[in-house]
Amino acid sequence: MSEQEWFTEIFGNSAFSVRYSKKLVDLQSDFQRIEIFESVSMGRVLVLNGCFMVTDKDAFIYHEMLVHPAMALLASPGRALVIGGGDGGAVTELTKYPELTTIILCEIDGKVIDSCREFFPDISRGLDDPRVKVVVGDGAAFVRESGEHFDLIVVDSTDPVGPAEVLFQEPFYEAVKQSLRPGGLAVFQTESPLFMEDVFHSVTLNLGAVFGHRSVRPYLATIPCYPGGLWSFTLCSGDSYPCDPANPASFGRLPVALRYYTPDIHRAAFALPAFAQRSLGQLP
Amino acid sequence: MSEQEWFTEIFGNSAFSVRYSKKLVDLQSDFQRIEIFESVSMGRVLVLNGCFMVTDKDAFIYHEMLVHPAMALLASPGRALVIGGGDGGAVTELTKYPELTTIILCEIDGKVIDSCREFFPDISRGLDDPRVKVVVGDGAAFVRESGEHFDLIVVDSTDPVGPAEVLFQEPFYEAVKQSLRPGGLAVFQTESPLFMEDVFHSVTLNLGAVFGHRSVRPYLATIPCYPGGLWSFTLCSGDSYPCDPANPASFGRLPVALRYYTPDIHRAAFALPAFAQRSLGQLP
Repeated sequence: MSEQEWFTEIFGNSAFSVRYSKKLVDLQSDFQRIEIFESVSMGRVLVLNGCFMVTDKDAFIYHEMLVHPAMALLASPGRALVIGGGDGGAVTELTKYPELTTIILCEIDGKVIDSCREFFPDISRGLDDPRVKVVVGDGAAFVRESGEHFDLIVVDSTDPVGPAEVLFQEPFYEAVKQSLRPGGLAVFQTESPLFMEDVFHSVTLNLGAVFGHRSVRPYLATIPCYPGGLWSFTLCSGDSYPCDPANPASFGRLPVALRYYTPDIHRAAFALPAFAQRSLGQLP
Repeated sequence: MSEQEWFTEIFGNSAFSVRYSKKLVDLQSDFQRIEIFESVSMGRVLVLNGCFMVTDKDAFIYHEMLVHPAMALLASPGRALVIGGGDGGAVTELTKYPELTTIILCEIDGKVIDSCREFFPDISRGLDDPRVKVVVGDGAAFVRESGEHFDLIVVDSTDPVGPAEVLFQEPFYEAVKQSLRPGGLAVFQTESPLFMEDVFHSVTLNLGAVFGHRSVRPYLATIPCYPGGLWSFTLCSGDSYPCDPANPASFGRLPVALRYYTPDIHRAAFALPAFAQRSLGQLP
């Protein structure tokens, strides 16, 4: 394959490639290399440090599944925080809820935000909502130091290497827990249970140590541009009561015209394959 | 990427690659090119006409999801037929049910069967079960001409080009329907609802025309080595009553020690994302 025509992410000993017609961005920020391609079949593609982050074709799956399961479980959400997520996609999903009065995005890399505002206008459009405040800074420091509290904290991180490494460590999880209002929820992207089984296992274990094992519930969706496709998110409740995803409070206020998430998908996403249940010690 | 070290399947304008240490098979049968690689991270990999078919890493997902949802819905299965599926994986899953007395595999390409017996001994081991009869021949002709009837027919085809094209056409669907015993079920692999939305749409429409639209139920699983990861199967009931996957008859006789399928996964798999429901005309 000609390197001029294909972008390839090598993940260990497998690789995913897209053919592109034009490279739109290639810059080095203080934190990472940022590339954006105009691909032939997946729309525009954001790549950070060589890894697929967002494509026009499948970003809706990731962003809807990061936001709507938690929103459906919250009784009366008013304030939300997104850590990472500089593409603006999680914020855009949150702006679909009129009951949210404050949405803060804390992204460490301002150049990711600027690039996505320019080249992913649909995905990032929520950033222009008047309820949204954008903070360019360290998400771990923000939850540790701001003194602000939220009904929902969404941790939309990159992989646990480089700038996001701190977002996979217990002191950060503890600060997130302390920043939740009573009844609040946090949701984390927690990697692939099949291609990164060790990370999935250790992250859910560490979240359980902080939030309490009965308050931590992984769920799944398929993200085609991520290694292995099968991807996990983990929902954590800040109070010590069990987090029960079987009884959503509020499907009634679900935004219309979503492309992936439905109430049936909500219930389905929490059904884990046998191998993932074994990885979590839920099956012998 | 050096072509000596990576095998790449190009699917339109995207591609999936695996690094391999050794090429074990490369032959041209009467029907297709057959390659088997020893990959570094996904075990052995079967490639037919340049497309990933089976890997040791994820074949369990495909084969379990092809067989167990239908088996859980059958009241008293005795006879099963697999069309295609020369790797033996679907047959191996079927042999886990003692109540099946006859399992016929009808695969057009004997060289696929021979290669998989040699290089995928775990996946193909069911072929040695005394209840299994292997027919090397045309699956479409078999269901048209054999006069045999089955409680379950599994259509484990390659993509709708080349030797499997006929397995995506209405005369074949009609012959499958006529070969079902009363109360019988057929299950088809029906491609990706995201990366091959047009095929998914037309196949389910055509199945509906033959089996009746209320008797056709697609369901999903993630198969990492297939394009887009998100993959569909479609369950069809031979009688004109609706096929209701919500009430499995027989989770009680589920084989132990499966790696993907569980009763919760069964229910979850039939929840379709909004975009797939729209593709089927189930959502506006």
